[in-house]
Amino acid sequence: MDEKRYNYRITLAYDGTCYSGWQVQPNATSIQAKVEEALKIILRKELRVIGSGRTDAGVHALGQVAHFHCDDILDLHRLLRSLNGLLPNDIRVKDIVPASLDFHAQYSATGKVYHYHLWLEKVHSPFLRHYSYHPYEKINLELLREAAALFVGTHDFTSFANEAHAGSACKDPVRTLSRLDILPEEGGVRLEFEADGFLYKMVRNIVGTLLEVASGKRSIEEIGSIFAAKDRKQAGKAAPPQGLFLVKVHYRE
Amino acid sequence: MDEKRYNYRITLAYDGTCYSGWQVQPNATSIQAKVEEALKIILRKELRVIGSGRTDAGVHALGQVAHFHCDDILDLHRLLRSLNGLLPNDIRVKDIVPASLDFHAQYSATGKVYHYHLWLEKVHSPFLRHYSYHPYEKINLELLREAAALFVGTHDFTSFANEAHAGSACKDPVRTLSRLDILPEEGGVRLEFEADGFLYKMVRNIVGTLLEVASGKRSIEEIGSIFAAKDRKQAGKAAPPQGLFLVKVHYRE
Repeated sequence: MDEKRYNYRITLAYDGTCYSGWQVQPNATSIQAKVEEALKIILRKELRVIGSGRTDAGVHALGQVAHFHCDDILDLHRLLRSLNGLLPNDIRVKDIVPASLDFHAQYSATGKVYHYHLWLEKVHSPFLRHYSYHPYEKINLELLREAAALFVGTHDFTSFANEAHAGSACKDPVRTLSRLDILPEEGGVRLEFEADGFLYKMVRNIVGTLLEVASGKRSIEEIGSIFAAKDRKQAGKAAPPQGLFLVKVHYRE
Repeated sequence: MDEKRYNYRITLAYDGTCYSGWQVQPNATSIQAKVEEALKIILRKELRVIGSGRTDAGVHALGQVAHFHCDDILDLHRLLRSLNGLLPNDIRVKDIVPASLDFHAQYSATGKVYHYHLWLEKVHSPFLRHYSYHPYEKINLELLREAAALFVGTHDFTSFANEAHAGSACKDPVRTLSRLDILPEEGGVRLEFEADGFLYKMVRNIVGTLLEVASGKRSIEEIGSIFAAKDRKQAGKAAPPQGLFLVKVHYRE
């Protein structure tokens, strides 16, 4: 695992329904492990594939980015085809390109885009049941938009972050959410989040809180005090994973 | 099973991935059986639910229509909720309305719309792997359009129809395909078929033949002689089921 001569950047899409998430975990099937296993078969060496960040069980990606170091110059066109041949159909490699040696999928990221899909019609689509969340309560879209606007900007998001797992680095909880757009789409709306970075479970915790406000369970005035409390317990419960997609990771090019 | 006083019309959407098709079959899980089982639990009687036609294993529906007779006046709002509560998430009842006693989901139908989705980019979407077909060969869209135009109109479609199963009625093989539009969509194209009726496997057999022409395996001139032969063996092999959706069934209102 001490390959240092070349660095490759890989872009992946995956349906997270059947996985325990991106990150390798004991006794669970992760997307990272599937990619590392396929690389091992093709390149006959154990390489570590580092993602831009974890995605949780059931969360999807349209544009997850990862990197891996290797001592060999690789035929990337062929590697892409071999990886997609070996990987299950719910994980697809979209692109592999050479990267500078100091490129790091997580630490070089300058921002990310997540989408959260809400199905708002009476009967859920059987085709989108794993790719959108269908809240039981009636959602007031005007209230949803008003509440969403309160999250945009630079804030301490401690109240909307779960504790990261043991061993992960302590992080500055201040993030800049540059936009949170609510766009109509088939059957409901899509919430588009763009920020310089996201804390653990931040998107799902914000969506959960927004849904409590938009369904009338909680007043919009509480959002200010939730932020001020810097206490995860003050915010709403996390929205379920199946509505969430990691869409894009930004890097300084 | 001899309920005759009222007739109800039911519209369903389903993801056909995990089913043997619409129609009840021994030793297989059909959508029809699932709906009949749910009705039996709710209404405490065995009712037969008649669909507008079979859909095969792996084929999906956005607007399958069925009817069932019953001696009771039903609370349809409540029935819809109960059915969706009991049915698996990949089968959804969209609508139930009272119908005239002579309404028959199959025999009253005056036309149908099917869509077939082709994914044409290099790497298949992990989210559409069960809902579109990704041909191996390079597809020439110009040729696909030219060939598709040859199917529109009134023809004897015998060469594009599989033998119906034992016991089904002999059918007139002449059908009028009023349109076969090829529309761009994310990742590829959608073929929209509209006709007064479709023979067994007709859409998939036409798509299979179109793909052979559009990938250069067969010349466009052969289509005329395939029609003339009135022989299923002359046409291309059926395109796989996962790209096919029954979108709408038309009735005289």
